[in-house]
Amino acid sequence: MEPRVSDTHRNSFSQLNVPPRLLLGPGPSNAHPRVMQAMATRLLGHLDPEFIDIMDGNQEMLRYLFQTDNSTCFPVSGTGSAAMEAAIANLVEPGDKVLVGVNGYFGLRMAEMAERYGAVVSTFNKPWGESFTRQEISMALREHRPAILCLVHAETSTGVRQSLLGVGDLCRKHGTLLLVDAVSSLGGVPLFVDEWKIDAAYSASQKCLSCPPGISALTLGERAMEKIGNRSVKVSNWYLDLTLLGRYWGRERIYHHTAPINLNYGIYEALRLVVEEGLEARWERHRRNADLLIAQLRKIGLEPFVRKEIRLPSLITVSVPEEVDARKVTTALLDDYNIEIGNGLGELEGRVWRIGLMGFNSRPENVAMVTTALDRILND
Amino acid sequence: MEPRVSDTHRNSFSQLNVPPRLLLGPGPSNAHPRVMQAMATRLLGHLDPEFIDIMDGNQEMLRYLFQTDNSTCFPVSGTGSAAMEAAIANLVEPGDKVLVGVNGYFGLRMAEMAERYGAVVSTFNKPWGESFTRQEISMALREHRPAILCLVHAETSTGVRQSLLGVGDLCRKHGTLLLVDAVSSLGGVPLFVDEWKIDAAYSASQKCLSCPPGISALTLGERAMEKIGNRSVKVSNWYLDLTLLGRYWGRERIYHHTAPINLNYGIYEALRLVVEEGLEARWERHRRNADLLIAQLRKIGLEPFVRKEIRLPSLITVSVPEEVDARKVTTALLDDYNIEIGNGLGELEGRVWRIGLMGFNSRPENVAMVTTALDRILND
Repeated sequence: MEPRVSDTHRNSFSQLNVPPRLLLGPGPSNAHPRVMQAMATRLLGHLDPEFIDIMDGNQEMLRYLFQTDNSTCFPVSGTGSAAMEAAIANLVEPGDKVLVGVNGYFGLRMAEMAERYGAVVSTFNKPWGESFTRQEISMALREHRPAILCLVHAETSTGVRQSLLGVGDLCRKHGTLLLVDAVSSLGGVPLFVDEWKIDAAYSASQKCLSCPPGISALTLGERAMEKIGNRSVKVSNWYLDLTLLGRYWGRERIYHHTAPINLNYGIYEALRLVVEEGLEARWERHRRNADLLIAQLRKIGLEPFVRKEIRLPSLITVSVPEEVDARKVTTALLDDYNIEIGNGLGELEGRVWRIGLMGFNSRPENVAMVTTALDRILND
Repeated sequence: MEPRVSDTHRNSFSQLNVPPRLLLGPGPSNAHPRVMQAMATRLLGHLDPEFIDIMDGNQEMLRYLFQTDNSTCFPVSGTGSAAMEAAIANLVEPGDKVLVGVNGYFGLRMAEMAERYGAVVSTFNKPWGESFTRQEISMALREHRPAILCLVHAETSTGVRQSLLGVGDLCRKHGTLLLVDAVSSLGGVPLFVDEWKIDAAYSASQKCLSCPPGISALTLGERAMEKIGNRSVKVSNWYLDLTLLGRYWGRERIYHHTAPINLNYGIYEALRLVVEEGLEARWERHRRNADLLIAQLRKIGLEPFVRKEIRLPSLITVSVPEEVDARKVTTALLDDYNIEIGNGLGELEGRVWRIGLMGFNSRPENVAMVTTALDRILND
């Protein structure tokens, strides 16, 4: 006999009615209207030939964004953290030496994940807000001789851009694979996977691509795929196993998991927008609006936290003036102006704000809006 | 110096223009129009108080759907396979004995995942298309004395419903946790997590909930959470670590990963639709339309593959008549009628078709459409 249905939790919740937020934090940023339209397209099955065409388009356009000829280049069915985990879970075998440059929160996350997959993890460190010099990286490689070096190209927690010039060559000299976090740079900040000899890189949809979160991007080169092909133990993570995923995204088209169809529509349109604008124009736009933001912030007495040479144009950290309660300001921005900016993360909590000007949101009117609102809150 | 941008992969892809498919396969099924509207709502940040209200609604409504008072009950940021993996990765510690009832493809998948997380896996088997009796389950438990028993409530590969009456009691007698795959049953087929003493269950969004894929559902009871709390090693899967996820979905609201905002909107509306209709009415609708489908199929000379007592109403497998090329028929349905039904999976390839009547798609007009089209293709 079947039990009776309990109505204990049968509560009525009201229709969605969300406030019109301007999302100028570390992400998600607002989606481009064309991306929202694309996501509203009716569903296809995940093995429908028409969907497979869309998958092919996503792979090819991601190659343009990553500036790579890698055949392994596709959207991952989860957020940027899932793409990070896909890279680490597949590349790391238990006992592998992994070296992580930690100068912010996301370096710590890479170290944490690598450890969970059985790596022997070493870190080399810089204060949050600084980046590593090529010499520091070279010394760390010589000291640790790791199988994998992890670096964060765009540290979302600090607003620092890590230069990768010459790092790939250093890694090859040591037989080390170079894994790069490009979550807050892809589509907004110069990134050259092949020219810089990056072996694996990943990103997210909700930053400079202006697509809602829930899908991400991953690419791996031949050296990385060779390491995965030579694994002696299976990847413990089934959902993100690249060998299985490769059979779905590659020629065989064998069912693995049901792809997030509408997010694939969304990222397809987001990538089309980048292809239309062109990477150089898009990078230049991010630079210009970041410069504009800094100039406007200075007019109201605020200073960027990161020095110019290593400052990200997509995510700008701003020093919180002494005697200002950082959280009170972000709350006022949200409550009174419908503007979201980020609080400091980890050890920068209370010390910085994080302002994202990413993708669609990297526009002069947004700079005007957020600086005006900040001025009123701080100085009125 | 920065390299020059390569336009090798800067190819123009056309605007999305997908055919109007009626998705009557094993999923995804068509999303409810109200769910599509909800997904088109503008973004909120993943720590916005307004989004946290939506998260709370999703948790509470999922309790109604699962028929549980469990505090751990929330959407997982990936497809149903990610929810399966979340359950297994967290519950299984290396060396744990895991017993899996295998009578189809998804039992095999559970066994595969458990093995990857270090379990000592045993299986007990039934031919695809059959289900386990309570006595068979009891014998297997006595023989193997596992820490965890995995059963598939609704086998999407065979169309079989597994009775769970009394199974929870058997498990408690042996100190075994009961983990149930409810991917193709939640919201369409009677399921009582608390009454049936299920310790952990998961489902997907794109089946009987009529929400696009990319988000899923998971609940765990106290005994399961206690096992996780007593783990001596961290869960290797960071993205799906329930301890970390619990700090985001619970009271602390600590950032873990960026939630898929729009899919949370989508499942929110999908759950509201179930709350409005009521579980009994919804289950009855699924039964009624499945009966109608069987009656119509018989009129055109087709027979269900699974006997009535253990037949799922959400996913009906149909025997392919001898001398009919199963794939030719599904291709004709897709090409000539824009109707997707599923081919057989695994050992049922070529032997059955799989027709889903799930959630929004469980309607008499869809039954009429698919049987008419099948009749024309097979009998004209």
